[in-house]
Amino acid sequence: MTLLETISGPRDLDGLSRAELVQLATEVRGFLVREISKTGGHLGPNLGVVELTIAIHRVFNSPTDAIVFDTGHQSYVHKLLTGRQDFSLLRQTHGLAGYPQRSESEHDIVESSHASSSLSWADGISRAFQMTGQTNRHVIAVVGDGALTGGMTWEALNNISDDNTRKLIIVVNDNGRSYAPTIGGMARFLNTVRTRASYRDAYLTSRQVFDKLGAPGRALYRGVRGGLHGFLSRVTNNEALYSNLDIKYIGPVDGHDVEAMREALTQAKNYGAPVIVHAITQKGRGYSPALLDEADQFHAVGQIDPETGESLAGAGGAASWTSVFADEMLDLATQDSLLVGITAAMLRPTGLHKMAERFPDRVHDVGIAEQHAVTSAAGLAFGGLHPVVALYATFINRAFDQVLMDVALHRAGVTFVLDRAGVTGPDGPSHHGMWDLAILQVVPNIRLAAPRDSIRLREELREAVRVDDGPTVLRYPKGSVGVEFEAIRRLADGVDILQESTEQDVLIVTVGPMAGTGLDVADRLAAQGIGATVVDPRWVVPVPRSIIDLAAGHRLVVTIEDGIRVGGIGTRIRQDLRAAGVDTAVTELGLPDEFLDHGTRAEILAATGLTPQHIARDVVAMVLGSKLPHARALAEDRTETGPISVTRSE
Amino acid sequence: MTLLETISGPRDLDGLSRAELVQLATEVRGFLVREISKTGGHLGPNLGVVELTIAIHRVFNSPTDAIVFDTGHQSYVHKLLTGRQDFSLLRQTHGLAGYPQRSESEHDIVESSHASSSLSWADGISRAFQMTGQTNRHVIAVVGDGALTGGMTWEALNNISDDNTRKLIIVVNDNGRSYAPTIGGMARFLNTVRTRASYRDAYLTSRQVFDKLGAPGRALYRGVRGGLHGFLSRVTNNEALYSNLDIKYIGPVDGHDVEAMREALTQAKNYGAPVIVHAITQKGRGYSPALLDEADQFHAVGQIDPETGESLAGAGGAASWTSVFADEMLDLATQDSLLVGITAAMLRPTGLHKMAERFPDRVHDVGIAEQHAVTSAAGLAFGGLHPVVALYATFINRAFDQVLMDVALHRAGVTFVLDRAGVTGPDGPSHHGMWDLAILQVVPNIRLAAPRDSIRLREELREAVRVDDGPTVLRYPKGSVGVEFEAIRRLADGVDILQESTEQDVLIVTVGPMAGTGLDVADRLAAQGIGATVVDPRWVVPVPRSIIDLAAGHRLVVTIEDGIRVGGIGTRIRQDLRAAGVDTAVTELGLPDEFLDHGTRAEILAATGLTPQHIARDVVAMVLGSKLPHARALAEDRTETGPISVTRSE
Repeated sequence: MTLLETISGPRDLDGLSRAELVQLATEVRGFLVREISKTGGHLGPNLGVVELTIAIHRVFNSPTDAIVFDTGHQSYVHKLLTGRQDFSLLRQTHGLAGYPQRSESEHDIVESSHASSSLSWADGISRAFQMTGQTNRHVIAVVGDGALTGGMTWEALNNISDDNTRKLIIVVNDNGRSYAPTIGGMARFLNTVRTRASYRDAYLTSRQVFDKLGAPGRALYRGVRGGLHGFLSRVTNNEALYSNLDIKYIGPVDGHDVEAMREALTQAKNYGAPVIVHAITQKGRGYSPALLDEADQFHAVGQIDPETGESLAGAGGAASWTSVFADEMLDLATQDSLLVGITAAMLRPTGLHKMAERFPDRVHDVGIAEQHAVTSAAGLAFGGLHPVVALYATFINRAFDQVLMDVALHRAGVTFVLDRAGVTGPDGPSHHGMWDLAILQVVPNIRLAAPRDSIRLREELREAVRVDDGPTVLRYPKGSVGVEFEAIRRLADGVDILQESTEQDVLIVTVGPMAGTGLDVADRLAAQGIGATVVDPRWVVPVPRSIIDLAAGHRLVVTIEDGIRVGGIGTRIRQDLRAAGVDTAVTELGLPDEFLDHGTRAEILAATGLTPQHIARDVVAMVLGSKLPHARALAEDRTETGPISVTRSE
Repeated sequence: MTLLETISGPRDLDGLSRAELVQLATEVRGFLVREISKTGGHLGPNLGVVELTIAIHRVFNSPTDAIVFDTGHQSYVHKLLTGRQDFSLLRQTHGLAGYPQRSESEHDIVESSHASSSLSWADGISRAFQMTGQTNRHVIAVVGDGALTGGMTWEALNNISDDNTRKLIIVVNDNGRSYAPTIGGMARFLNTVRTRASYRDAYLTSRQVFDKLGAPGRALYRGVRGGLHGFLSRVTNNEALYSNLDIKYIGPVDGHDVEAMREALTQAKNYGAPVIVHAITQKGRGYSPALLDEADQFHAVGQIDPETGESLAGAGGAASWTSVFADEMLDLATQDSLLVGITAAMLRPTGLHKMAERFPDRVHDVGIAEQHAVTSAAGLAFGGLHPVVALYATFINRAFDQVLMDVALHRAGVTFVLDRAGVTGPDGPSHHGMWDLAILQVVPNIRLAAPRDSIRLREELREAVRVDDGPTVLRYPKGSVGVEFEAIRRLADGVDILQESTEQDVLIVTVGPMAGTGLDVADRLAAQGIGATVVDPRWVVPVPRSIIDLAAGHRLVVTIEDGIRVGGIGTRIRQDLRAAGVDTAVTELGLPDEFLDHGTRAEILAATGLTPQHIARDVVAMVLGSKLPHARALAEDRTETGPISVTRSE
C-alpha cells in the first residue's frame, strides 16, 4: 500500500513525518503523470503545486479552514488529499470534474475557472467569518502570479489591506507563467525576485524574524527587503509613510520544499492578519517532458505516453478552428500592416502565435486582463489601427461593459474572435461559451458572425477586419473544424442557402457549425415527406433581411444554435420577424437556461437535445401534432410523400 | 470682455501671462458656479480641476495630443477652453452633454462615464501613435484617485509599465474622494502623502532633479522618495531590483497652482516615456457651500442658489425610489443581523447610508470596484451572511461575469439592488440603465423583480433577502417614486392584477414603473371599445406561470418595459409562451437597440414611443389593422362598444 492510499482526508497527513511527506509528494507526482496520461488534463499546473498543497492541508484544517483555488485547474492534488483518488474518468461524464466542485466534496468552495477572483472570494469569506464570530476559521487563497495581472486582484488587495483583523492567507503560486509566461511590469518584478541567487537567504531572514517575534498577533512584521509586497507598498525600516498599503509578506519560499512551505504557512497561520506567502514553483516540476516544453509546460494535455510525453492522438489530426484562424490571421496581417492582435495571456491557445512569430511588435499579450484588452483595443482603433482581440468565448463575459461602452458606443473598429464558443466539453460549466451570443446581441452597432466551417471562418474574418465603424465578432467552437458545407447559392446580403426544398414547409436557420446538424435534420424531414430549406445567415446579428423574407414564405422556422436558447439568435430572429410583420411560427433550439456539467461535446449536445435525431423527431411532432385540421389530416395520412401544409403552430 | 470670452480654442491660452492664467481660473470658477446653479450638473468635480485643465491645455496641443478624461464629468473646464461656452442647456436636449462627446468637438475622445477606463484608452492610443509613426502626439489621461480603486487601472498600469517608449502622461487628480471619500489601503496611502506638511518640499526636490537632468529622454529619473509610485514599486537609490514596476513620477503638485502644474506637465511632456503627475486638488475648490458639504462636496447638483448653494427644488419633494430603499433597508437590517450592505463608492446615492449610519460595520464600501463587490458578496454568502449589493443599473454591466460565475453558479444568496434603471436622463448614453434586464435574464437561477411603486419596492426587497439559493435583483428608476398602484387582487404566484376587463382582448404586462403607462393605455383602449387587463408580474424572471395562463386567454399580449426591447422581458415572455404551447400574439415594447442621448426621462420615453398615447394608438392600429377578416369587420364597425375579436396578429 502506498502512502497516498492511506490518505482518505487531510487529517491523515498529521501523522506523517517530514520524510513521509516528501515521499507522499513523490507518490502524488507519479500518480498525476500516470493517471493524467490516460485521461488528459491539467498536468503541468498540478505538478507545480504538489508540495504546496500538501503543506496547506497539513497546516490548515479544511473544511473548517476554507481553501479557495484561483482558476481551479490546479486542484488535483487537493482532490487526492480530500478523499478523491479515482481519476479514471477525470473530466468525463460521471467522473471527477477538472475543477473544484462543491457536489464532489465539502472541501471544494469555488468552482469557476475564471481567473483572478480568489482574493475577492477570500475577502468575502473571511469577512463573514469575522462578522459571525467564526474566529477559529482561516481562509487560504491560492493564486498564481498570472492571475495577479487581472484587475480583480487589485480591487481585492485594496480592500484586504484596509482591514488587518482577519485570518486570511494569500499563497502566491509564482511560476512565472499565466498560460504563457506572465507579462507586464509586475511579472518582470517577480522574475527578478525569483531568479535572484539569494532569494533563499532572504526567506531565511524572514523566518528568523518571525521566529523571534513569537506568539501570534503580537508582532508587526515589516519583513524581508524584497519580494511581492513591492508592488503593493514601499517598505523601508524607518518610514511609516509606506506601511499603509502593506500586506504582511513571507517569502520567497521554495514551493517544492514541503518543510519550508509548512514553516512559512505556520507562521502565516499564527499571524492573525492578512499575509502573503510567496512560493516559487515550477510548472511541470519533476516531469522532464513538461519542463522541456517551452510553449506551455504541459498546461493541459490530451492522452499522452507517460514516458515521453508524446501525444497519443496521432499525427496529422484534423485541422482545428484555432489553426485555421491562426493561418488566416497571419495572411491578413501580412497584407494589412494596420492589423494588430491582442491576447489575454492566451497567445497559442487562441492562435495568435503565428502572427506573433512573424510580427512580434504587432501582437500584444496584456495578461489575464480582458477588460483592458477590450478598452485598449478601442484606443488602438482611435489611433488608426484595427485590433483583433482573440479570447475564449467564456471570457468575453468579463468585458461586456467594455465592449458596450468603449467599443460600441465609440464605434471603434475592433474585431473579437471568440474561440471555444458553445459547448466546450471537459472543462465544465465555467468554460462553456454559451452566453456570448445572448449578451452581445444586445450591443448596439454590433455585427456577429458564426462561421460554419474553415472556408467561412477565413472569409468572415476578412469581412470583419474591414469593418471600421463598430465591433465585429466571430465565434466558433473548440476542436476540429470538420467538413465544409458548400452553399447552393449565396443571396445578395450574404446569406448562404445550403439546401433548398421546393416545398416551403420548414426553414431551418443554423448558427455556425450547427449547419451540419441542420442539413441532417432536413434529410430526416424529407424522409417524412416534409420539405426543408437550410440556410446559414453567416452574419447572425443584425438578422439579414433575406432571412426575414425567406421566413415569410415558410410555414415554420426552426433555428439551431450552440448557445443559450434564452435571449439567443433564435429569439432575435423571432423578434425581428414579428417587428417586420411576419407571423411564421418559430421554434428556437439551443442550450437550456442552466449550467452544464463537463462531458464530451457530443454527450452534452445529446443531453440537451441538440442532435439531428432529436430535432427531427420534435419538428415532425410539431408539424404532425399541430392542432390545426390540415395538419391532423396529414398526420393521419403521413405515409404519403406529398407536400404537407403546416400552419402556424407556435 | 472677460478673458474667458477671448478663449475660443486651447491655443488662445498661449499668449496669456502667468497672472492672466490665474485670472482665467478665477473667471472659469465664477462661470461654473453661475451657470451650473441654473442648470444643475457636476459642480464639485469641475471646481476641483480648473487650474489643472488650464495647465494641460497650455502645455499640450489638443487635438494633436489626445486628452482622455476618466469618468468624464469633470470635463466642463475642458469644454470651456475648447470652444464651448454656452452652458445654458447643459445636459438638456439640444444642449451640451455632461460628458465629453465626440459629436461636440474634436477635442473629445472618451464619452463613457464608467470609471477606471482612461488608462486603458491611453495605453491603446499611445501604442497606436507609436506604431503608426505619429511620434509627435502625446496622450494625457486625467484620472481621479477614486478611479484608481478600479481593477482596470491595475491592468493598464501593468501594461504601461512594460513599455517605456511611449509619450503617455497620467495626471492623477487626487482629491481623496471617489464620490464619497476613497477607500482602501491605496487611499490611506495617498492621504498620508496628501496631508504630509512637506509634500510641497518633496515636489520641489522632484523639480530640481528634473531640471538637473536636462534634455528630454536622456535621464532615468528615479524620483522623489514618496508619492504615488509607492503602490507600484519599491524604489530605493541603489536597488535596481525594484525598478521594474516603476512608472516615473512627478509630484505631489498643488493642483490649484497653475504655474506649478504647468511646470510639472512640461517636465512630463519632455520626458518621452510614461509619467505620472500627481496633483493634489480639492473638490469644490473656491466655493464654500461645496467645501462645507461633507457628504459629497456638491458632486452633482440640481438647480441651486449660487450664493448659498441651497437647492431651489424646494423642501418636501416627493420621496425618491432611493429614499424608500434606504428606509426599508434600515428596517430589514434592524430585524436581521445577517444582512450586510455593499456599495461601490456610492453609499449615499444608492441609499445604503441609513443602514451604514446605524450599523457601520455591516455596510462596506469596496471602492469603484463592481467586480470585487459582486464576488466578495458571493464569499460573504458562503460565510453565512446575506449581502445586498446596491449599484446603479448601468454599472452591473461591469460585473456580469461575476454575477454569472461567482453568484449564480454557486447559488449564492446575494441581492442586487439596481438604482437608476432604465432611462435616467441628463447623464447620457453611458448612464442609462437599459441593458440590465436583457443581460441578467440569461443568468441561470436568477430572479428579477421590478417594483412598480414604493409599496412594492419594500415588499419585493423583503422577499428578495429571504432567497438564499441564488441571485435576486431589484431594479427601479431614478427620481421620484410617484403614486401607488393598488392591485385588484394578487394571484397565488404573486402576480398583481391591476385592472381587469371582462373582454379578454388585450393583456398588458407591465414591468415596474411602466404600470402607470399600462393603466393609461388600458383606459385609452377601453375608450375605443377594446378590453384590456393590466398585470404586474412583480417578479419578471422567471416568468410567473399565471402570466402564461392569462396570456393563453387573451388575443394579444402587450408588454411594456423601460429597458432594451431586444432580449428584454417582453421577448422572454414570448419565448416562454411559445415553449408552453401558447400562441397568443405578443407585442413587446421597450427601448430601441441604440444608444440614447441625454434629455429628460419624459423626453426620452416620448422620443422612443413609450408614452400611453403612442402605445394606445399602435395597439389600436394593430387590432384594427389586422389582416384577419374578423378584425377588418370590426375596423369597419369600430364605433360599436361591443367586444372585439382580435386574432393572432403577430
